[in-house]
Amino acid sequence: MTSIIALYPGTFDPFHNGHLDIARRALALFDQLVIGVYDLPDKHLLFTHEERIALIEQCLHTISPDGRVRVMGYSGLTVNFARSIGARVLVRGLRNSVDFDFELQMAQTNHWLAEDIEYVCLFANAPNHFLSATLIRQISALGGDVSGLVPPVVAQALAQKHGRVPLPPPIPPRKLRKRLEE
Amino acid sequence: MTSIIALYPGTFDPFHNGHLDIARRALALFDQLVIGVYDLPDKHLLFTHEERIALIEQCLHTISPDGRVRVMGYSGLTVNFARSIGARVLVRGLRNSVDFDFELQMAQTNHWLAEDIEYVCLFANAPNHFLSATLIRQISALGGDVSGLVPPVVAQALAQKHGRVPLPPPIPPRKLRKRLEE
Amino acid sequence: MTSIIALYPGTFDPFHNGHLDIARRALALFDQLVIGVYDLPDKHLLFTHEERIALIEQCLHTISPDGRVRVMGYSGLTVNFARSIGARVLVRGLRNSVDFDFELQMAQTNHWLAEDIEYVCLFANAPNHFLSATLIRQISALGGDVSGLVPPVVAQALAQKHGRVPLPPPIPPRKLRKRLEE
Amino acid sequence: MTSIIALYPGTFDPFHNGHLDIARRALALFDQLVIGVYDLPDKHLLFTHEERIALIEQCLHTISPDGRVRVMGYSGLTVNFARSIGARVLVRGLRNSVDFDFELQMAQTNHWLAEDIEYVCLFANAPNHFLSATLIRQISALGGDVSGLVPPVVAQALAQKHGRVPLPPPIPPRKLRKRLEE
Amino acid sequence: MTSIIALYPGTFDPFHNGHLDIARRALALFDQLVIGVYDLPDKHLLFTHEERIALIEQCLHTISPDGRVRVMGYSGLTVNFARSIGARVLVRGLRNSVDFDFELQMAQTNHWLAEDIEYVCLFANAPNHFLSATLIRQISALGGDVSGLVPPVVAQALAQKHGRVPLPPPIPPRKLRKRLEE
Amino acid sequence: MTSIIALYPGTFDPFHNGHLDIARRALALFDQLVIGVYDLPDKHLLFTHEERIALIEQCLHTISPDGRVRVMGYSGLTVNFARSIGARVLVRGLRNSVDFDFELQMAQTNHWLAEDIEYVCLFANAPNHFLSATLIRQISALGGDVSGLVPPVVAQALAQKHGRVPLPPPIPPRKLRKRLEE
Repeated sequence: MTSIIALYPGTFDPFHNGHLDIARRALALFDQLVIGVYDLPDKHLLFTHEERIALIEQCLHTISPDGRVRVMGYSGLTVNFARSIGARVLVRGLRNSVDFDFELQMAQTNHWLAEDIEYVCLFANAPNHFLSATLIRQISALGGDVSGLVPPVVAQALAQKHGRVPLPPPIPPRKLRKRLEE
Repeated sequence: MTSIIALYPGTFDPFHNGHLDIARRALALFDQLVIGVYDLPDKHLLFTHEERIALIEQCLHTISPDGRVRVMGYSGLTVNFARSIGARVLVRGLRNSVDFDFELQMAQTNHWLAEDIEYVCLFANAPNHFLSATLIRQISALGGDVSGLVPPVVAQALAQKHGRVPLPPPIPPRKLRKRLEE
Repeated sequence: MTSIIALYPGTFDPFHNGHLDIARRALALFDQLVIGVYDLPDKHLLFTHEERIALIEQCLHTISPDGRVRVMGYSGLTVNFARSIGARVLVRGLRNSVDFDFELQMAQTNHWLAEDIEYVCLFANAPNHFLSATLIRQISALGGDVSGLVPPVVAQALAQKHGRVPLPPPIPPRKLRKRLEE
Repeated sequence: MTSIIALYPGTFDPFHNGHLDIARRALALFDQLVIGVYDLPDKHLLFTHEERIALIEQCLHTISPDGRVRVMGYSGLTVNFARSIGARVLVRGLRNSVDFDFELQMAQTNHWLAEDIEYVCLFANAPNHFLSATLIRQISALGGDVSGLVPPVVAQALAQKHGRVPLPPPIPPRKLRKRLEE
Repeated sequence: MTSIIALYPGTFDPFHNGHLDIARRALALFDQLVIGVYDLPDKHLLFTHEERIALIEQCLHTISPDGRVRVMGYSGLTVNFARSIGARVLVRGLRNSVDFDFELQMAQTNHWLAEDIEYVCLFANAPNHFLSATLIRQISALGGDVSGLVPPVVAQALAQKHGRVPLPPPIPPRKLRKRLEE
Repeated sequence: MTSIIALYPGTFDPFHNGHLDIARRALALFDQLVIGVYDLPDKHLLFTHEERIALIEQCLHTISPDGRVRVMGYSGLTVNFARSIGARVLVRGLRNSVDFDFELQMAQTNHWLAEDIEYVCLFANAPNHFLSATLIRQISALGGDVSGLVPPVVAQALAQKHGRVPLPPPIPPRKLRKRLEE
């Protein structure tokens, strides 16, 4: 069978441990994984597109030291982006029945738009079951401790956004993504 | 990446077009697919374990002429069977939110029993969205036409079960399964 | 527009105030209503097919004194029965999201079997919102008072079934149904 | 039975094939159908109230050449509008369990506000099952092809809104609505 | 057992009969009840924080003449506020499965943040089953009569907000809350 | 406030860690807790009524050494049993939206039958989120290890039921329950 590239698309505002878990598990199923960060200008996000991409890149070493996972920004239809990078699988996490109804609609829409691209869902596992990016932004904004819910760099970035601690040294160049875009 | 064997477990009483669609799509994702037919003695089924296995085997040529899919019967815990055949992925179809709650529970249970085995869900596509084996047994029992909902051999077998038409010639030996069990 | 016959199908074991409410409201929408009592031999029911039909007939005068509603027993596929009586609408009540998933599947199945027959749902209203026949059988079996949940004749029949009070005088011949069957 | 006017209320931003299907089916059930376009100033809509009304009017000939369906704009409580046009039925489409919870609440609210007005739900059929106006606006905004999901005039209007193709000749006067408003 | 303080947190924009019912029932379960009014600046609310607190205070006499219930404003994490007032129980009302998914997530989040604080849910009873603050604001804004859905002072305040009737005399000092804050 | 007795009713076939967690948490909220074991003759249970009661009694010391919790068998309507022991609170655990729909119906039914008895729900916490007695019976019957999902005495009893290990010495007399029944 030919090698499969899977796309894990999302807004990731910010990337949290539930996302990390889905990415790690998707990587065990498919040859390559692209975490696609959607460029969403018309929504009030906490982190910019660049920041969201950079934060994920700093977490990748914890799930794959071998370069099988990359982070890429995108805009437009997700299925178009999938095609442009040769991905024929979309991976999504499912937590509860509200997620389910949304994902079912997206799966059916994507199936209508691009029958050749498969939509695969993985269930959130118990410790991450309740996690959502919205929740993490809210807890963090209200001064709650999210350090057990997000990777360390994200915890740091959240603290800085909410004016509590200084950011770490500048983020190293995103080599992986550049390599792909060339 | 090493080759992945996926297990699509179920009762398949009987195998219908929704199952066929999930199997076909799973085969596009993973190197090998085993359709595992659960031996369920304590439930009132229409078809015997042997019949259910045989019916699926007769449908396989429509989804994979290359021997990447096999049918196998099993009993006991699904995760134990998965391990015994070297499968590290379970594949399931999702239709609606009742399915979702059941599958979420099964996914969490299997994660607890066997953390190394992944539970992957594919959404039923629109034309098969409402299909269930229970529904097909009911429609067929009441004399309804299920020929558009199940493979031809299953339609024939249902008709014979409900005393309407003779069965086709004997089923050819299940070669694929034997090869695996040796 | 030509006159519309609507079919309200169910097991009605027993007919309760939630059913009565749906029937009354369906009658305000369509020219004629047939309450179709499904003959379900393979299920453990409390009341026989004849008893269930007779009980509903005794309740009809409370919703329609003008003969626009009839009770009929049936077996086989509901859409076949609908066609045989010239009904082109099926009416069903919806209480909660479990009902919803079931009714959605039935609606899609019936649409597949008989595209010309419409499936119409009415929401259970607040006072009847929690009512189900199963619940009423359970409460009654355990000695609870269901007199506020079912029509008086049904309360009486339940009490007799559970060995508490004698039944009223014999049920008058089901004229309406006979007229139709001739 | 006296003639029944049914109201199909919504925002219709824009009217799509799922709406068209519900309207067509409602017309088979009731003598007259009014598609009520809600004037929603406080929400960021893609099409103006006038545009939404005009687009629907251009689609009506595909469902009813006989003048039994009309389009009307309204504001205020839906039940008040229903009463003002003599409608005693509200028609709504149901797609999934998120819809269900919303519609149940609206049905119970409307029942409380106007017990004499019935709330009737029709299930979205399989090919339109996933359709929503939000989805169509998103796909279209991102350059996706929605021509199989909406009537041709709506596809054209979407394309123009997103700066891609010129609009067709001016819309004919909305005669039906005027006749009613006189 | 030591005395238990329960916190009933919410936005209460505005307080309605469903809230009143939950508060009254919570008071029958726990020694003291604090209705915590969340200070939500970043959301478009109809009533100010002060107004929402004052309206609830004017309703308390109908549920508890004995001072066991108080109203307090708060900001920040709910569990932190709970701890600051010595509450070890959060009380919430549940209406439908959309509520359920939200409350489950909040319960699991709060359990993660503060394992010592219990999250208790009471089901909305039938007559209040469909009530939501959003719905009441909408009905009232559109000129509908909400007098059967909210306490009289809230009906009056809604009418004034929508420019229909004058407000009653000034609200008496919020003694209960002050006493606690000292 | 007068002392409150809470009833935690169920079939408990068998009692598992999710039940234990709900009981422990209910005990933190109310003065006394009665675990009511329903005598259900018409259902195929694994353990007898006596066995289910005895197993729970052997687990109580882990949640309450002070005698505030008791186990009692009962039959008939749960609200009648609640009244007979002076309980004015029913406690139930909630795991998912299927549970929710069932519990909502039971809460509304019990409210109709006994308005003075409150129905309180606690959410299952993450580690026990997927647990159900059905699941445990199935896993155990198929030879799976349930020792992390149930108290040790229940694991032992399950093993014996499924013919694997001998039972421990006879169960000590159920003193607590007798005390209450006298």
